Amino acid sequence: MIYLDNAATTFPKPDSVYSAVTETLREYGGNPGRSGHKLSLAAGRIIEETRLLVAQLFHISKPEQVVFTLNTTDALNLALKGVLSAGDHVITSSMEHNSVSRPLEALKSIGVEYTKVPTSSEKGVRISDVEFAIKENTKLMVFTHISNVTGTENPISEIGGLCRKHGILFLVDAAQSAGIRPIDVQKMNIDLMAFPGHKGLLGPQGTGGLYIREGIEVMPLKQGGTGSHSELLSQPEQLPDRFESGTQNTPGLAGLAAGVKYIIDHDVEFVQEKETRLVNRFINGISELQGITIYGPPTGPKRSGVVSINFNGMDAVELSFILDNVFDIATRAGLHCSPDAHAMLGTLRSGGTLRFSIGSFNTDNDIDFCIDALTQLSKDGLMREVK
Amino acid sequence: MIYLDNAATTFPKPDSVYSAVTETLREYGGNPGRSGHKLSLAAGRIIEETRLLVAQLFHISKPEQVVFTLNTTDALNLALKGVLSAGDHVITSSMEHNSVSRPLEALKSIGVEYTKVPTSSEKGVRISDVEFAIKENTKLMVFTHISNVTGTENPISEIGGLCRKHGILFLVDAAQSAGIRPIDVQKMNIDLMAFPGHKGLLGPQGTGGLYIREGIEVMPLKQGGTGSHSELLSQPEQLPDRFESGTQNTPGLAGLAAGVKYIIDHDVEFVQEKETRLVNRFINGISELQGITIYGPPTGPKRSGVVSINFNGMDAVELSFILDNVFDIATRAGLHCSPDAHAMLGTLRSGGTLRFSIGSFNTDNDIDFCIDALTQLSKDGLMREVK
Repeated sequence: MIYLDNAATTFPKPDSVYSAVTETLREYGGNPGRSGHKLSLAAGRIIEETRLLVAQLFHISKPEQVVFTLNTTDALNLALKGVLSAGDHVITSSMEHNSVSRPLEALKSIGVEYTKVPTSSEKGVRISDVEFAIKENTKLMVFTHISNVTGTENPISEIGGLCRKHGILFLVDAAQSAGIRPIDVQKMNIDLMAFPGHKGLLGPQGTGGLYIREGIEVMPLKQGGTGSHSELLSQPEQLPDRFESGTQNTPGLAGLAAGVKYIIDHDVEFVQEKETRLVNRFINGISELQGITIYGPPTGPKRSGVVSINFNGMDAVELSFILDNVFDIATRAGLHCSPDAHAMLGTLRSGGTLRFSIGSFNTDNDIDFCIDALTQLSKDGLMREVK
Repeated sequence: MIYLDNAATTFPKPDSVYSAVTETLREYGGNPGRSGHKLSLAAGRIIEETRLLVAQLFHISKPEQVVFTLNTTDALNLALKGVLSAGDHVITSSMEHNSVSRPLEALKSIGVEYTKVPTSSEKGVRISDVEFAIKENTKLMVFTHISNVTGTENPISEIGGLCRKHGILFLVDAAQSAGIRPIDVQKMNIDLMAFPGHKGLLGPQGTGGLYIREGIEVMPLKQGGTGSHSELLSQPEQLPDRFESGTQNTPGLAGLAAGVKYIIDHDVEFVQEKETRLVNRFINGISELQGITIYGPPTGPKRSGVVSINFNGMDAVELSFILDNVFDIATRAGLHCSPDAHAMLGTLRSGGTLRFSIGSFNTDNDIDFCIDALTQLSKDGLMREVK
């Protein structure tokens, strides 16, 4: 199979990720941070090593500012609900994932209001539009770093500067950029950043986290046992315990450590370069096909490995099905949980787009095979192959 | 190592659990419920199979009434915060884990009140005390099935009957009973039940879930992408999607399926019998040791594999350390995240207890070795070995 659905979850993972999970399950099966025996301490060390590696990758000064969650959605909900309260205003974009749009909509019921800044699928949000949206009660800005529909990159550093200037909190959804773009939370003035473990960081599903800049007051969404200060009826104050109630996903986090280590060892700039090269090769190879529409920015370094297309008004789901069943190419069709982005593209009512998303382990051959498949389908009037 | 910390997390797991995780990571790495290609569909099927097995084990009529969470704490927070609102009264016990006590305390700030029914470490709560605590505004009762400190079993069926009679919701914390005691949510009149994946169900850490009886209104704690009804700004209504935003822990849930299958194949009654036999052997072997205090119920079927002790007023943490380092026996010392239970036992200020917790894979030899170690320590005045 040629796997081009890396924006949903990366596959395959480095072999070291598989081994780390298996080794942890078989050899270090204690409950981390609970008991004092060897197996429990070893499990605890695995999680702290993962925290250290994530902190290193994102230039986070203190590892405890990284808290682990089930997934990015979990982290985004914690960030949004943990800092916002009645009367607060939020600025966001019209190309966010439902993991941002839906919590914001739910927060309306407690008196939070938000503004969606218009977005261009070629260039992302304009910084002047973002600044124009600032109000007296703007507490937070939340933007996706890279769109999961079009691969469009937002000007995160500039938005970060703007937030710092106006004393507004800045939350970044790094679902499509963590491990794929260099991220320095300090230089980029990021206050909160939600990231997945199982996408660009190459870890297993069931992992993710939230970076919380030191000194930011976030209320926990959950309370429970942390293995620390057990005598208190209230949740402990210190991080990461404050936000990590209950038993964590130790084997998953061991795999995440291996994934992050792979990214650090291979250098995220190198990952980005390779992906840019492959996506350019892909777009150049398909741009002349008859009836094709390619959404998002032109080829170049500001475009991620995510490419959405449509073909002659053909149903994207059907096309994805053909690619899977006739050519063994895995893609994703539909709205990709981001209806706003499709409203912007004009593809909301027509059923979305067909999305190809390139990952670390794709090759020139994968891309060429995919170009050939689309070329053949285009020549055949798309459908002849399966009829 | 002799592992007697199964109440924190079971270890080892059946070999089928390790293989299921590894196979899923290596072979079925798609994102479940997102895309339509083979790998994604296979991942989705794994999760639905897990749901089916959990439903089968607990006699849940519709699998979609099981929603998966990061851990039991996550499930308890969802249940408590999802059904309670200002003006509601809750009845709970004085032997709950912090995963129940702390969310209840946090809910006070929005106007929820609760009553803690007194508990006997020998017999659990008395049904007459529970009934006496009912008020006009009692919305929910929440009780642990089995104490994680003393192994005491609460009369869950009787409390369930009482709740049904009075129209009160019944939430069970099955952290120490799922996979260890037969549970029939219908017969026991359980409306909501939080369970861990990584304890009695023998799955990996990072898994757990909540059973929600059909028709019970639970507000989601999180909103986000579910792969379904992506066009809606509000969270979809149908279960399990309503509560499973973001990418789930597919490899972990594959492991959980294997664990639950192991329990179903081996029969939970058999697991219980074996554990009862081992715990009786253990208690009989240590009960005459000089200076020992054994907490909880006497030997018998109403006692789980959890045994808390103290020795001559000796520090439990130190004793656990000696057992680990001199005898290679893994135990847990301290409060076990359940300060209320220790207040009841009178061990809160003295640093808690030393806890032995027996699991499916312990043997007579493990127990005898542990009895011999404690006997030797007792004869030596406990400390001579390490000085």
